[in-house]
Amino acid sequence: MKIVLDAMGGDFGPEPNVEAAIMTAREFGYEVILVGKQDQIRPLLVKHNTAGLTLPIVHASEVIEMHEHPASAVKSKKDSSMVVGLQMVKRGEADAFVTMGNTGGALAGALLNLGRIKGIHRPALTAQLPNLKGWSLMVDVGANAVCKPEYLVQFALMGSVYAERVLGKRNPSVAIISNGEEETKGNDLVQEVHQLLKRTSLNFIGNAEGRHVPMGYADVYVTDGFTGNVMLKLMEGMKTFFTTLLKNAATADVRSKVGGLLLKPSITKTLKGLDYEEVGGAPLLGVDGVVVIGHGRSNARAIYSALKVAANCVENRVIETIEKGLEAMPKADVTN
Amino acid sequence: MKIVLDAMGGDFGPEPNVEAAIMTAREFGYEVILVGKQDQIRPLLVKHNTAGLTLPIVHASEVIEMHEHPASAVKSKKDSSMVVGLQMVKRGEADAFVTMGNTGGALAGALLNLGRIKGIHRPALTAQLPNLKGWSLMVDVGANAVCKPEYLVQFALMGSVYAERVLGKRNPSVAIISNGEEETKGNDLVQEVHQLLKRTSLNFIGNAEGRHVPMGYADVYVTDGFTGNVMLKLMEGMKTFFTTLLKNAATADVRSKVGGLLLKPSITKTLKGLDYEEVGGAPLLGVDGVVVIGHGRSNARAIYSALKVAANCVENRVIETIEKGLEAMPKADVTN
Repeated sequence: MKIVLDAMGGDFGPEPNVEAAIMTAREFGYEVILVGKQDQIRPLLVKHNTAGLTLPIVHASEVIEMHEHPASAVKSKKDSSMVVGLQMVKRGEADAFVTMGNTGGALAGALLNLGRIKGIHRPALTAQLPNLKGWSLMVDVGANAVCKPEYLVQFALMGSVYAERVLGKRNPSVAIISNGEEETKGNDLVQEVHQLLKRTSLNFIGNAEGRHVPMGYADVYVTDGFTGNVMLKLMEGMKTFFTTLLKNAATADVRSKVGGLLLKPSITKTLKGLDYEEVGGAPLLGVDGVVVIGHGRSNARAIYSALKVAANCVENRVIETIEKGLEAMPKADVTN
Repeated sequence: MKIVLDAMGGDFGPEPNVEAAIMTAREFGYEVILVGKQDQIRPLLVKHNTAGLTLPIVHASEVIEMHEHPASAVKSKKDSSMVVGLQMVKRGEADAFVTMGNTGGALAGALLNLGRIKGIHRPALTAQLPNLKGWSLMVDVGANAVCKPEYLVQFALMGSVYAERVLGKRNPSVAIISNGEEETKGNDLVQEVHQLLKRTSLNFIGNAEGRHVPMGYADVYVTDGFTGNVMLKLMEGMKTFFTTLLKNAATADVRSKVGGLLLKPSITKTLKGLDYEEVGGAPLLGVDGVVVIGHGRSNARAIYSALKVAANCVENRVIETIEKGLEAMPKADVTN
């Protein structure tokens, strides 16, 4: 297993990336290729004992910054860690690419350098969302603000493959986000996709309302990238909202302060279970290569988790399974 | 002040409605007209001391149930509490109509019986959402799954008037929900509305992402009824999610149980502040009459709050202010 890691990606620069690469190489024996500025990476690497680990550095002189315009950055910065890393996957020199960098850049870079899986209209960003029963997947969370019905049918297929192969869900249930449970509810897109999904062999369970998502109603939620992005960020905001309220409540008076201190370990454990560190990253589905994108503010633990996600995608042949799934789908529904 | 209350509305029947009517009449001296089945309302009313209060009963033999199809129900059930109550507002026999009943029914009923404010394309459902700084308003949360740009511009105007006149926000800030802060982000609808809102005299502050809403970024959020409904229900679901996690964390072991008991009063107080009971109901904006719709599971306290909202709308001349605001808007933007 050879995974390319964008060593420059994320808010904290190469340090957590190098640390995560070492952790992963040590634990699983993977080769982790660190792409980026070698004068920054090498000094970090030599601080650790890396005897017996395969951690090559591939130099790339440029970095796509977090706030650059994605499409123009990947076109102009040919020697960026992102473009160099993706090109290695393209040439078969690595099995997967992992980055904590600019999400739009990773999307544009992957499209430009790897292209789409044959037959896929649009790649989609995914997110793994916590719920009362475990985790579910949402597709798309921002790659395509405007979608055609056939895109969402493909998102359902790709999400379903990932949920089954990597998240270990058997016959994953798929729901479409709507403003009501009845199949007559939804905007034009949702109503059309609902009818198309009924005709697939996917385990489609109908519409899901917003309230269903945190309850763990379905394994996979499909939606356009506008709605998915709004929902993902609203969930993040609600986490901040409730943890802030909880902190305020636990400092309101002496009694509450004592209660808060006693409850803290249990709360911390609960919140940790929701954390992106445990998930690490989510795949960009639909491009012709394994690409996993993580949070900019990832620490080493989160990047380590993202590297594991990438390895899982490779080992469980996610791309090949999507290709086979596409062949089995009614052509008229997904390729018009 | 004469307010018609749909005494049959809500999950708990006439009892909390009658109780709320008495509370409101006693506290503010309003006349609250109870519309519904008189054989059910009267026995509840006589149980209380209502000396000096004006609480007439207007008999209506039918009820629009929570799961009936809204449009057909309001057409076929001419003697329902909802239709009879709305007709009283239409004829000027009351200043406002309040219901905890079928939301779709109230919307369809209001459109059919009161009509729209002259120049308004579509009425919108609103919701008052808690955030770290207080409350904000979202328009539309479900009346119009599919919207044209000019609808959203009018939602912004109407929300702004309500926020200023009833919620007491000075020069309320208005944001449009999008999948990114930059004005180039969004689906076609959002991008177009963004440009239109910039040209109005409203205090438009740009796009809001999902994460901004619980932080209290803006006073008024405009969005299509599909997205708004998904967001509103997701926020409800997230509240259940976090309170369930908190309960689990507070019962994990003896230490946590003790901590949980100590913290409970403070948490309960915090959560109560987020409750719809305090808000009661939100207006249906754009119809030619004050209509306030509350939660089906409202208790007397919540219905009392909804009656106050209705009185505030009347006293602060929300409809007249919307009419004036419409006249002042560039015609091309809002009436094409």
